[in-house]
Order: sequence, then structure tokens, then C-alpha cells
Amino acid sequence: MTFNPFSLIIITLCVHQQDTLNTLKTNNLNNISILGLGLIGGSLALALDSAENPVIRTGWSRSQSTRDFAKDNNVVDIVCQTPEQAVTSADMVVLAGPISSFAGQMKQIADFLPQNCIVTDVGSTKSEIHKWAKKHLPNHARFVGSHPMAGSEQQGIEFARADLFEGAFCFVTPSDDSDPAAVELVKQVWKKLNMRVIEISPQKHDQTVAMISHLPHVIASSLVNISDLEQIIYCGKGFLDTTRIASGPENVWRDILMTNPTNVARSIDKMIKSLSVLRDQLKAKNGDEIEKMLADARIKRNELVELKLQRKELPE
Amino acid sequence: MTFNPFSLIIITLCVHQQDTLNTLKTNNLNNISILGLGLIGGSLALALDSAENPVIRTGWSRSQSTRDFAKDNNVVDIVCQTPEQAVTSADMVVLAGPISSFAGQMKQIADFLPQNCIVTDVGSTKSEIHKWAKKHLPNHARFVGSHPMAGSEQQGIEFARADLFEGAFCFVTPSDDSDPAAVELVKQVWKKLNMRVIEISPQKHDQTVAMISHLPHVIASSLVNISDLEQIIYCGKGFLDTTRIASGPENVWRDILMTNPTNVARSIDKMIKSLSVLRDQLKAKNGDEIEKMLADARIKRNELVELKLQRKELPE
Repeated sequence: MTFNPFSLIIITLCVHQQDTLNTLKTNNLNNISILGLGLIGGSLALALDSAENPVIRTGWSRSQSTRDFAKDNNVVDIVCQTPEQAVTSADMVVLAGPISSFAGQMKQIADFLPQNCIVTDVGSTKSEIHKWAKKHLPNHARFVGSHPMAGSEQQGIEFARADLFEGAFCFVTPSDDSDPAAVELVKQVWKKLNMRVIEISPQKHDQTVAMISHLPHVIASSLVNISDLEQIIYCGKGFLDTTRIASGPENVWRDILMTNPTNVARSIDKMIKSLSVLRDQLKAKNGDEIEKMLADARIKRNELVELKLQRKELPE
Repeated sequence: MTFNPFSLIIITLCVHQQDTLNTLKTNNLNNISILGLGLIGGSLALALDSAENPVIRTGWSRSQSTRDFAKDNNVVDIVCQTPEQAVTSADMVVLAGPISSFAGQMKQIADFLPQNCIVTDVGSTKSEIHKWAKKHLPNHARFVGSHPMAGSEQQGIEFARADLFEGAFCFVTPSDDSDPAAVELVKQVWKKLNMRVIEISPQKHDQTVAMISHLPHVIASSLVNISDLEQIIYCGKGFLDTTRIASGPENVWRDILMTNPTNVARSIDKMIKSLSVLRDQLKAKNGDEIEKMLADARIKRNELVELKLQRKELPE
């Protein structure tokens, strides 16, 4: 029998995954409760469901039809009627509904959380959510923020899929008073779903996503709003790509922008300044300056794409 | 033998194409000269090359290596050493180089254009180019602007392909003194390449593309320029899509912006105003207003996509 180097890789991967699972077990992470079973919550439940994985998945959704779907399709192991019921046996609770529901849900579950239960969330902003956790969760609960950067324009449990998180970034945001063991466990859960986990403070997180995600959304929406349908019917792929994210759900984006207003406003101001400079150069007919700005952007974006290709974060 | 309805469709299509070709022949369009053999010029030459098509394709490029490539790969029928040589037998001349070369080339070929020769171009702006044509071309030459909305981030004759124009929009921009027969012939040439031809004034064209193409480019470049590479390494598909066009060649885009400065500056001002309103609503915590803006954009963009799907301008 000849030696096949690939078997070694496969064995190493399996051992690695088994290690993670054993760590979860050792740390008594036996029951994960997911509040909110939409695209993200549902996908998390499906991703956690693996033969080697002994975690019991408990779930609750505000909507009866979602609860029925979750039950009928075994999205979770146990479907509960209330958030309170859903958390009573949890070792970890994941808030996976809209951000605007989090403060209320924290109050609702506060008295029902088991001792030392870990609480995390999947919200796209973090500072405000950390403040709510500090205010509404009991002292014994261990809160650590999460932001898995996965999703799509589709919403709802019927679009949930086990591979949604595969290869994507997940921010984990401990605050100064987060329990290090809880931070470690939250990171392990996302790593188990093959996410690229980044530990970052809630404040730094909100600054970063304001620039890489919230500002682009605001720009895409503004660009669509100021255009005439009469003109844009002639648009090509450029306009459609630049505005693609404007097709996202407004209620989700309202929550995001309203919980990160200072950073988003600051990013908008930077954008306005950059556009003003370009407009002034145009009016002054400074072709060389304009070409330099365009070249800077091309070079920087190509560096970004090159880096992402090297790290295998993009298809070749 | 049973009747196959598809044969009728195929016969109709062939007859239609033969009609167009016959019209070109009837109108003595036997020699088309292309000045500039990059992605667009080269693709035009390849697209014009069809067995049923008797048009002689003459070409010139500033670069020796491009002329060699064109000769070795039969991109055109005749490769010339100078623009003057290339136009002496032309029934139609197509300026397909960078916009900044057009004024000089018009002066250069002015005395060598055959009587009543049609001149068109493929530039992404139109008003300035019409002014140059009026100033530099002889009175007998018949100028009509064109703007085939096709292309890619790739540049150069080696990326030229016969199907580049297939299904895309082509603006044809007669001015008040354009010869109607020349306008008709220019439209026929682009239609023959299966383009969706839109007749529009040069001024209206430049307003339209400022909004659907030039402003999005400026926005994409600004967004990249104001971001930190440290932050954007964590970006997802949203940021990459929104900024994709910023990877376009700066020399081409310099020419475009510098020949449409008033409309682009006006579009930038509209964008700045829209972003300022959104920032102020954010600061005032007007969640309802923000959600409305986001909803307006989502609905309008979805209408646009729906319309484009209906018209089969997008893959299903």
C-alpha cells in the first residue's frame, strides 16, 4: 500500500473537528438555545446539527408558522412556545432575531437563565447590544457579542442552510468585563461552523462595519433614490452591482443604522468630503489629480482582491 | 414531414439579418475603417466579420504590437500604418481609441476622408465629441455619435471578442445638423451586432450616463479611497460588489469625467445632498424616515431588476 498524503490531511481535519467537539462537551455546552429562527437562526441550528455533535438545539420563534416549519423540518430538536421556556435548560443562548427585539428579550429571559449561562447574539452592530446586556441581563449571565458576517438578501427559515457560515468572517466582541472562558467558548462554536473568527472590541467592530458595510448600504440606497427610472432603465452591470445591496430588507437595515448612528454619520461625512474634493477638481479641470484619485482606488481595490484571493476568501 | 415552428423562426431571423446586410450594401457601406484596435475596436472588427457580410474591415492602431496582432489573427482585413491611410477608402470611419485622441485624429484625417464619408465613434461621452467633429471634420463628412455600452475591466485587442456587443445598449446621438440617412446607417450597423439601439441627443445622453455610469464610478472610487485597508480586509461580497467598477482603467475614466464635468458635478451634488439628509435623519434618530428611504430604494431597484428581467436584458 502506497502512502497517500491526502489521508493525513483528512485525518488531521477530523481529529481537529473532534477536538473542538470534545472541548464543547468538556465545557458542558450541551444545550444551545436559539431565539429567532430566520435565515441566520435557522442556518445556525442546521449547521450545529451534525452526527458527531451531541448539542441539543432548542429554538423559539415569534411566528407560529416558523415554529411549525422548524418542527416539521427538524431545524431544531425542541421548539418552544416562549423565550422563557426556550432558555431554562440552555448552556448558551443565541439572540438571532432583529436587533430591535434584543433589549426586550433580554429583560424577558433574565429571570429564567440558568446559572452561568452564556448569552451571545448575531446582530450586525455591537456597542449598543453590549450596553443592553449590561443593563438587562443578570450578573451571573456571561454575555459576549458575535457578528457572523453571513446572510443574503433572502429572509426567513425556508432559506436557512447548514453551509451559510462556511468560510465567512465572524466577529466576536468581548467587553472589558466579559468572562474569558465564555469568550473562548463562543469563538469555538463559530469556528466549529468553519467561520474565520476575529476577536475585536465592540467599539472597534462598530467603526469597522460602518465603513465596510453600513456606508456602502447607505450609498447604494442614496444612489438609487436620486436616479430617475427613465435613465436607469439603460444601466448596465456597473450600476446594478454598485446598488445590489440596496435591495436588502429595510427593517433590518433600519435597526443596524439606528444602533450605529455616530460611526455611520462619521463615515458619511468622510464620503461627502471625498466626493466634494473630486467635484472641485472636476470643476477646476485638474485631470492629473482626478486620474491620481482613480488610480489610487484601482490599485488599493486590486490589492484587496489579491489579498483575499491569497487567503482563499474568494473563488479563483 | 411534420411542420416545425422553429424552422420558421430561424428563416425569419435569417431573412431579417440578410435584409440588414442588403441595406448596408444598397447604401454603399462596403468599407468600414476602425481607428483604434483595443477591446472595443477589435471586438467591433470581429463582430463585423461574418460569411454573409461583404464589408471590408480596415484598421489602424497606434501600437505596432497591436497592428501585428490584428494582422496575425485576421482581426481586420487590412492593417494600415497611419490613420490617414486607413480612411482613404472608407465609407464609414469609427473612432475607437481613447476619447482624448479623438480631436487630434479628426484633424489628422480631415483632408483624407472620401466625399460623404460617415464618421462615428465609441466614446462614453458625446457633447464634447460632437463639438470637436463640428470644428475639425470637413463639411462633407457626416458625423453621428455612438456609445456602445459594452466592455469590461479588461483592455486590449487580445480580449476582443465577436459577442461583446450582443444584447447590450448602444446610444446613437444625432445632433441638429446630422444627416438622417447617416444616422439610419450608423443605427443599422449596431443593430446588426444585435445591440439595443437608443436614439438620444448628445446632451441628454451625457446627463443619462452621468447618473447611470459616471457617478457610480466616482462613488466606487471614493469609497475605496476613504477606507482603511486594515478594515476592508474583513469586507464581504457587499463592499466588493459596490466597488467593483473602481478597478477600471484610470486613463479611460479620466477622459470620460473630463469630457462630462458639468453633469458629473451636478450628479455628485445630488448625491451629497441625499447623503446629508440621511446623516441628519440619523443624528435626529428619525428611524421611520430612514426606513422609508431604505424602502424607497429597495422598491425602486427591484422594479428596475423586474423590468430588465421582463425585457430579457438580464439572465433569469
